[in-house]
Amino acid sequence: MSVFTPVTPEQMRDWLAGYAVGRLAELRGIEAGVQNSNFFVTTTLGRYVLTLFESVPRAELPYYLHLMAHLARHGLPVPAPIANRDNDYLGTLAGRPAVMVTRLAGRSEMAPSVAQCERLGAMLAGLHLAGMSYGRRQDNSRGPAWRERAAAAVLPQLAPGDRALLEAELIVQRGLDELDLPVGTIHADLFRDNVLWDGEHVGGVIDFYFACTDALLFDVAVTLNDWCGRTDGTLDPARANAFLLAYHADRPFTRAEREAWPAMLRRAALRFWLSRLEDFHRPREGEMVLVKNPDEFREILRTRIAQPGAVRLP
Amino acid sequence: MSVFTPVTPEQMRDWLAGYAVGRLAELRGIEAGVQNSNFFVTTTLGRYVLTLFESVPRAELPYYLHLMAHLARHGLPVPAPIANRDNDYLGTLAGRPAVMVTRLAGRSEMAPSVAQCERLGAMLAGLHLAGMSYGRRQDNSRGPAWRERAAAAVLPQLAPGDRALLEAELIVQRGLDELDLPVGTIHADLFRDNVLWDGEHVGGVIDFYFACTDALLFDVAVTLNDWCGRTDGTLDPARANAFLLAYHADRPFTRAEREAWPAMLRRAALRFWLSRLEDFHRPREGEMVLVKNPDEFREILRTRIAQPGAVRLP
Repeated sequence: MSVFTPVTPEQMRDWLAGYAVGRLAELRGIEAGVQNSNFFVTTTLGRYVLTLFESVPRAELPYYLHLMAHLARHGLPVPAPIANRDNDYLGTLAGRPAVMVTRLAGRSEMAPSVAQCERLGAMLAGLHLAGMSYGRRQDNSRGPAWRERAAAAVLPQLAPGDRALLEAELIVQRGLDELDLPVGTIHADLFRDNVLWDGEHVGGVIDFYFACTDALLFDVAVTLNDWCGRTDGTLDPARANAFLLAYHADRPFTRAEREAWPAMLRRAALRFWLSRLEDFHRPREGEMVLVKNPDEFREILRTRIAQPGAVRLP
Repeated sequence: MSVFTPVTPEQMRDWLAGYAVGRLAELRGIEAGVQNSNFFVTTTLGRYVLTLFESVPRAELPYYLHLMAHLARHGLPVPAPIANRDNDYLGTLAGRPAVMVTRLAGRSEMAPSVAQCERLGAMLAGLHLAGMSYGRRQDNSRGPAWRERAAAAVLPQLAPGDRALLEAELIVQRGLDELDLPVGTIHADLFRDNVLWDGEHVGGVIDFYFACTDALLFDVAVTLNDWCGRTDGTLDPARANAFLLAYHADRPFTRAEREAWPAMLRRAALRFWLSRLEDFHRPREGEMVLVKNPDEFREILRTRIAQPGAVRLP
């Protein structure tokens, strides 16, 4: 489903001649991901992942690739881009911008344990700490301007109850005072399918193509909403507290973050409710993309509004 | 035997606070290596190796650390130095220059198979190709000037037969025309104990502290002498040819290299005969260092002289 652009073994052999990683042993498409074409590449020297970018603009790619390289260099288990013999990460293959990265061990866990949420909290703190010294900046493409645009586009399509919920939440979010919140490099999409578990250890954090410069607390909220929630949208305090305490131990929350926390959880829910509504009402043409149910995040938003003190920051 | 400088868990916790790799879970000394103190460091985020440098001058360390980072960035399985939150690789711990690197999988294989020699050939070619774009240069500390010095120091101690062998070989080596040999970044110490095997794959190449800028063919000769020899000093043609063909497939040998090959095999043998003679006659004081038998390399040198055509370059 996710190999939009095929790559032949001949093309791959030519591509590898520009690298220092040996010769092609195996090339295999990966049936996952909705934005890019991905392949497992095995050579005589190692195992890598090849990504062909189908929609991310080429000019934006250096931000992501150098971020991944920066985090890997700081000891985080993220895919490290492989430089070719000209010392470049980014090339062109089958007409697409393309990169090879290291292949990480593990598989995603859709029912994470308390212990895993604790490890994930430490991992997210590590990402934020290492990201502090990353020199490039990029605005959140799903920030306030996008939020207003997306909301305006989907509002006419919503049932009256949903419309009222959305309009009220937009007003709350416009009023959130972010000035004192610590800002840095965030992943912004750290869902369960973007973390590979190697036993109880985090083997890899992948899919950095929403990464940007924004409030660290937004990243915490996005992650917690996905990892520590129950199917009815409520939070599981055991997993949530394990996650937050582990994060706090390495990157302590500030007073301003504690105050902004309930609204930030709602902002994180709103961001994914809106993008899923966008996808639902305007599916991308010609692509066999799984359209996820927007209602899941409407319920998360409702629950965060109804139970603002369900989980507090340490 | 090889932890010359102890590190306490308290010191390690303080050190880790300067990184983004989580908190200390386990610290364990490694009983291997003769030059540095090494430790396995496990944190809440990952597994690393800590090295305290006991003898390499601090000013030389950036050459090695940036080389390892460069090769890792190019997809080679080498220990990648971890940057701290100030973006530096090199720090100070327990009064020693210190670095953390990624921990690689595998163990060394003292009786390598033909298939392993083939993989190693591809790996060495990959190291040489990736090393072409490394910007730093460093002379071989075991080059011609050292060779003459070391020979002069040990000659008086040798039995007449060995003395004659050494003096004759010095004359041959002074006469070797190196001008046309491809030069690049070489490992210069790629012995069997410096490669970790993860099954049939090279899991890691370690110990870059003899790396330098020199003839690529010297690296090929050093490696082949150790990996493809028998205990009597003769070469095993099956392993040697597998190694050389795999290397040649990715980094083709030149005509000048083919001509220099028999003398280069002797140069590589001489280099380790001399350093072992140095260690044997002047063991470093106060260190429990294993002094290896110099005679092993005298036999290799003798055999390379006696059978110059035993293994030819492809």
